[in-house]
Amino acid sequence: MSIRVGVIGTGMIGQDHIRRLTRVLSGAEVVAVTDVDLAVATEVAEALRAAKVHASGQDVVDDPDVDAVIVASWGPTHEEFVLACIAAAKPVFCEKPLATTAAACRRIIDAEVATGRRLVQVGFMRRYDAAYRALKEVVSSGAIGAPLLVHSRHRNPSVPESYTREMAITDTAVHDFDVVRWLLEEELVSATVLTPRKSRHGADLQDPLLMVFHSESGALVDVETSVNIRYGYDIGAEVVGEDGTAALADSNGVVVRRDGAFSGRVPADWRERFVRAYDTEFQEWIDALVSGLGATGPSSWDGYAAAVVSDAAVRALQDGGTVPIELGPKPDLYLKP
Amino acid sequence: MSIRVGVIGTGMIGQDHIRRLTRVLSGAEVVAVTDVDLAVATEVAEALRAAKVHASGQDVVDDPDVDAVIVASWGPTHEEFVLACIAAAKPVFCEKPLATTAAACRRIIDAEVATGRRLVQVGFMRRYDAAYRALKEVVSSGAIGAPLLVHSRHRNPSVPESYTREMAITDTAVHDFDVVRWLLEEELVSATVLTPRKSRHGADLQDPLLMVFHSESGALVDVETSVNIRYGYDIGAEVVGEDGTAALADSNGVVVRRDGAFSGRVPADWRERFVRAYDTEFQEWIDALVSGLGATGPSSWDGYAAAVVSDAAVRALQDGGTVPIELGPKPDLYLKP
Amino acid sequence: MSIRVGVIGTGMIGQDHIRRLTRVLSGAEVVAVTDVDLAVATEVAEALRAAKVHASGQDVVDDPDVDAVIVASWGPTHEEFVLACIAAAKPVFCEKPLATTAAACRRIIDAEVATGRRLVQVGFMRRYDAAYRALKEVVSSGAIGAPLLVHSRHRNPSVPESYTREMAITDTAVHDFDVVRWLLEEELVSATVLTPRKSRHGADLQDPLLMVFHSESGALVDVETSVNIRYGYDIGAEVVGEDGTAALADSNGVVVRRDGAFSGRVPADWRERFVRAYDTEFQEWIDALVSGLGATGPSSWDGYAAAVVSDAAVRALQDGGTVPIELGPKPDLYLKP
Amino acid sequence: MSIRVGVIGTGMIGQDHIRRLTRVLSGAEVVAVTDVDLAVATEVAEALRAAKVHASGQDVVDDPDVDAVIVASWGPTHEEFVLACIAAAKPVFCEKPLATTAAACRRIIDAEVATGRRLVQVGFMRRYDAAYRALKEVVSSGAIGAPLLVHSRHRNPSVPESYTREMAITDTAVHDFDVVRWLLEEELVSATVLTPRKSRHGADLQDPLLMVFHSESGALVDVETSVNIRYGYDIGAEVVGEDGTAALADSNGVVVRRDGAFSGRVPADWRERFVRAYDTEFQEWIDALVSGLGATGPSSWDGYAAAVVSDAAVRALQDGGTVPIELGPKPDLYLKP
Repeated sequence: MSIRVGVIGTGMIGQDHIRRLTRVLSGAEVVAVTDVDLAVATEVAEALRAAKVHASGQDVVDDPDVDAVIVASWGPTHEEFVLACIAAAKPVFCEKPLATTAAACRRIIDAEVATGRRLVQVGFMRRYDAAYRALKEVVSSGAIGAPLLVHSRHRNPSVPESYTREMAITDTAVHDFDVVRWLLEEELVSATVLTPRKSRHGADLQDPLLMVFHSESGALVDVETSVNIRYGYDIGAEVVGEDGTAALADSNGVVVRRDGAFSGRVPADWRERFVRAYDTEFQEWIDALVSGLGATGPSSWDGYAAAVVSDAAVRALQDGGTVPIELGPKPDLYLKP
Repeated sequence: MSIRVGVIGTGMIGQDHIRRLTRVLSGAEVVAVTDVDLAVATEVAEALRAAKVHASGQDVVDDPDVDAVIVASWGPTHEEFVLACIAAAKPVFCEKPLATTAAACRRIIDAEVATGRRLVQVGFMRRYDAAYRALKEVVSSGAIGAPLLVHSRHRNPSVPESYTREMAITDTAVHDFDVVRWLLEEELVSATVLTPRKSRHGADLQDPLLMVFHSESGALVDVETSVNIRYGYDIGAEVVGEDGTAALADSNGVVVRRDGAFSGRVPADWRERFVRAYDTEFQEWIDALVSGLGATGPSSWDGYAAAVVSDAAVRALQDGGTVPIELGPKPDLYLKP
Repeated sequence: MSIRVGVIGTGMIGQDHIRRLTRVLSGAEVVAVTDVDLAVATEVAEALRAAKVHASGQDVVDDPDVDAVIVASWGPTHEEFVLACIAAAKPVFCEKPLATTAAACRRIIDAEVATGRRLVQVGFMRRYDAAYRALKEVVSSGAIGAPLLVHSRHRNPSVPESYTREMAITDTAVHDFDVVRWLLEEELVSATVLTPRKSRHGADLQDPLLMVFHSESGALVDVETSVNIRYGYDIGAEVVGEDGTAALADSNGVVVRRDGAFSGRVPADWRERFVRAYDTEFQEWIDALVSGLGATGPSSWDGYAAAVVSDAAVRALQDGGTVPIELGPKPDLYLKP
Repeated sequence: MSIRVGVIGTGMIGQDHIRRLTRVLSGAEVVAVTDVDLAVATEVAEALRAAKVHASGQDVVDDPDVDAVIVASWGPTHEEFVLACIAAAKPVFCEKPLATTAAACRRIIDAEVATGRRLVQVGFMRRYDAAYRALKEVVSSGAIGAPLLVHSRHRNPSVPESYTREMAITDTAVHDFDVVRWLLEEELVSATVLTPRKSRHGADLQDPLLMVFHSESGALVDVETSVNIRYGYDIGAEVVGEDGTAALADSNGVVVRRDGAFSGRVPADWRERFVRAYDTEFQEWIDALVSGLGATGPSSWDGYAAAVVSDAAVRALQDGGTVPIELGPKPDLYLKP
């Protein structure tokens, strides 16, 4: 039995997910698509042969041939389509952000909780990366004792001119927020943002940033974003525990020796670094649906928490000082089984 | 369009390939199976629901619903089934060995050449491993100059009691032979086998072995097999060129610091090490079939060459001295496009 | 010509310096010693045969046979002996701290400046470590662009019960302060100290700490101290520049593969980690004296700066918030030639 | 008390040892020198001020002010001077080779054995390298089980035009022979030399070479020499035991990330790689002399064994096949205490 998927948003990321579902992974087929640009959607559907083109996201959700939906449209439209999926009781995979405001995320949570089951999964792909999973396994095993500090590094070779200092938080570090919450299995409770002088790359952009968070248990998390660092896409994480540390290693398949040096490759971009994580993310989503389970990955709560942490960090960046992060109580639906 | 695959041999490896085709990869479905133990084949077919059980491998090949065949049965049966596929003009993926003797491999080559197109692919999965591919890319780029030496290491944690010294060549090092031929893009022309004293593990087994080969161009290749080394499954390769070297790196996702040491994991077995390579191998096979291409991976010629190199190495182990490797002329069908 | 050295303070560290001068390095001999415990000083002198025992540090300084002095006595006595050396126009190597207060360091600076030449060197040995020097070379070369961030890690396996939270700054991180000033070639201008929950090791000690500093140019420096981390003595430093980064590497002489892992050793303590740096530090001090140069290493100004930075960090720890670091103008004597 | 050293041979290597003794290490002074070129010897002596210039090596040995001798003259003169030292009962440090033929080495052994005590130390500096020592410690600890294989790599960036294929054995690999004998604590018993095609660097030189040896216990040792490899001076060693392996690690003080890669430095030449080993080698020689011990490092027997192994390997290179290595019985003087 194959899961029949409808895709809302057939831009670059939507097309990549379609490729993944139809040419890489097993257990799903794309049966309907739509896009704000219907010409693009039509072209994509034609390449797929069997897929329908719908005039709107709501039509995709309503299509009785659609078992589950992927939302890969423009961020501000996410809330509407995710709520539509919940109303239709259809599982939905929503690219980050879950919604553009914490209040909107709250509305999604309320709607989902009202249905009594998890339908929503948010696209935080790092949780599916083999190295991050190995890191979590070490931390969870107790081998390094209770975590006290986390150092997280997020480096991009470059960003477009339209990129603002706030996007270093909402678009870039948001992945670090999620993966740290997942590693520590607890919430972050306060945010501070420190700013060094600016890199000459990126015009007047405030880059890099160093953000610091406390977690519920009192662990201290620092997150570096360097979004114009030129040399590559480089992701680092080290958890410092009471008895030792665990860190992501250089993912170097090959070591070359020439010209006075030994060297290994740094990934060129996030696609190269996380290509396998995306595959695993979608395969596990499909597998869960096939097994009759709702979503098992990052939840509406995780999407909401990411939004609230981001809001606090943006405020800390704009106003200075330490900003508390208040999530409110976590509905039972999102507690681990 | 989905490729309809028939599987001959539903033992451990056959079942793993079926799982891969039906639950991991895209573009293929398993429609027919058989096994020397029909009860097992029936059980496997039932789990797949839609698949037929045939009484023999020939029946699988003859089934008009079968587009392509996977041969994962006992080695001595490979020749018969591969020849049957060629006779039926159906693409066939044959697990190593292609056949148990060089003469049998020759018969397969002759039959395939007579059809004028490539139908046969042999299961040498290392060519699909990301690290080996990166290694080949460096070598082919010319960055280290022309290759002069290759050091290849093949270490297993343990082998069963039934494992003989010859199997270190025919079952273990055969992967090194293939991957070195592929890295160097040339044939091996002579074999010598050197024996240190035996490891205390493995009763009276002659382990480890150090084999040395010359290639056509004069590159020198040494292959270590250590099949009872306890600490893990560890594969190494270093190509020494005129201007530098390139080597597989430790595939360490995470570095842990505790108890006075920093450390990374060594894979427990070949499954852990090559799980992704198997996925890629089959995905590319399916993709080639979907595109109307015949097999694009390791060919009958590669399976034949592996057999002839193995034969020479076995003779060198048994009789001492250096044994020439004579492949004869390579049919045009197997020349690079 | 051999430099005749007098040593004030023959406790553990003084004895180690004497061993170094008499048994490891070239160009110096120890001719006079003293200690608050004269019995110890006498024992040390006897082992050296030719050395005199003096009743006081002042007597060592005044001894006409003494060309240069090492001060390795209790911290609170440093100011007196260093001032005595300056008064006598004799070069002096003073173990850290230069003095116990910033005001006392200021008095030393004033006295030294009045003589018109550098006589004082302070014992910050990291500047002599081969890896730190290689790091500075990369940073200075411009290969990674202008520095924007520094991440410094200082981990100790354990500390005695008498160790206080302030000592993590004044005794431990003070080395990070010095080495960062030296790497960046500029001063730190503000200090903030962040505290996670406490490690279960070390009773009620506030450990670890994460300190954050701004430099004059606006670079942001974070310093982790984890002083009860059990697994070893582990020093890390990464400089993040506009175009790349440079970091200390694991100083692993040997990689061992066994029991499912590859691993390298972490030093057990600072002696193991910095034994060579101490040798180099003293050899270069002696060489400078032999060449008729005064001290060329860390200066009174560096000792003073370390004290002022430490004071600010202690205040930030005790009172919270960000504390400015005000050094005042730097006398010409301490400008680079 | 200072050891008064006479130096025979004040060329590049002799001058470097003199620098080491007078400017780096403790416990020795150079009091007399000679050289085949007396003008050079005179210049060196003048720089040292206190040193005498002698007309011949014999005069240096005979000088009553000389406690111990360093022989750093042209290889063919070594035998004569070492024998003179033995006759005078003076400790002698002889740069490799101990003598240019096995027979000459034998004569030295006979003379030394007749005196009943060890006087001769041969300059195999690798035994004093920290990484090799750590490697030996792991092997001796039993952590990897009994050694079965050793892989040794000796790579030079380039060699002069006068370098012959035999020198890859007698000048280059001779260090590998010694260090492997020392690591395994046993003798090598047979030699085979394999030749790949030649590197384009180095005109018609047969480079690289792959040599294979059996040890007494049956361990198999392969030694690669690549003497024109351009990228740096790179020394590798891996011991494969029954339960694991131990290998020299990349001696990377700093890791730099830029231009799409992370990288570490490879030493430019043997001086950079082994500078510390030379220091330690001479310090331990001096310390042994000061303590009244004779030489404690590589012995006449080790110098002899290196010569015999080299002879066998040269024969194997010239004539092909496997050549036995016959050392004869080891005098008691050279057994471990």
